[in-house]
Amino acid sequence: MKLPTVLLAGLLGSVLAQQQPSVSGQASVAYPEGYRNWVHVKSALISPSHKSFASLGGFQHIYANPEAMTGYRTRTFPEGSIVVFDWLEMKDTDGAYAEGPRRQVDVMVKDSRRFAQTGGWGFQRFVKDSRTELAAAPTPQQCFACHERLKKDGLILSTYRP
Amino acid sequence: MKLPTVLLAGLLGSVLAQQQPSVSGQASVAYPEGYRNWVHVKSALISPSHKSFASLGGFQHIYANPEAMTGYRTRTFPEGSIVVFDWLEMKDTDGAYAEGPRRQVDVMVKDSRRFAQTGGWGFQRFVKDSRTELAAAPTPQQCFACHERLKKDGLILSTYRP
Repeated sequence: MKLPTVLLAGLLGSVLAQQQPSVSGQASVAYPEGYRNWVHVKSALISPSHKSFASLGGFQHIYANPEAMTGYRTRTFPEGSIVVFDWLEMKDTDGAYAEGPRRQVDVMVKDSRRFAQTGGWGFQRFVKDSRTELAAAPTPQQCFACHERLKKDGLILSTYRP
Repeated sequence: MKLPTVLLAGLLGSVLAQQQPSVSGQASVAYPEGYRNWVHVKSALISPSHKSFASLGGFQHIYANPEAMTGYRTRTFPEGSIVVFDWLEMKDTDGAYAEGPRRQVDVMVKDSRRFAQTGGWGFQRFVKDSRTELAAAPTPQQCFACHERLKKDGLILSTYRP
């Protein structure tokens, strides 16, 4: 997932150079309760030397529910798969980076009927630690467009790190 | 866990400035099979600007089995608690850091009888992806001495990040 992550961060950085406004409203995708108990797929970090550090800097952790773990093994993600992309700011102490506050929680849910217009996946971004406050951008359609452009073997861009 | 992690890395860096030799022998602590399915407690990263980057650089992920998760909630770790400290090298692409090869796997197991000499915890470091090759240093006694020196509310220095 190295290259796609970098590309994705770059593209997102271009789109979202400023702090994002948020909206209240009905999420099309539910908050992924309990995802911190799911399997940790892999991580990445946007460091202070990255051009998009101000808006995207920090840790990125990916978590998968059991259905999505089947998908990571087979590259065919069954209905009900949920993947969480958890963004945390970072704190630098002489080059040792610790996790900071949560930036946002991105969620992808596989439901081929409900989300037929976006490749069978629903997309949603939750602001900071909120379970109800949604990011105004990127919209689910923007999420889908970028994943569609970057995809190799499906809209889930990451691979499981053993 | 921010400060203890940084301190620990610094101390380890002083002790282990060179690549570590390894030994074959009977591990006092078993390899933690299946730990990648356990709960991800938190992460940190030793960046290229850290003085010990050559020997310790990259991602540090902590995983806990169900008994240890009880310990993270209550700060009293029951018998059978296992905590894994998973070290991965890193790759830098224009400031975006990806996970690299595994550096080592550190394990702590709570067994008050077997490990009475080291605070009730067994310590072991496995080299890279090996389930049998043990690091020659730090020894379990050295691990214990450093954890004992840094401890606040017990020999597990980290706290769970929700």
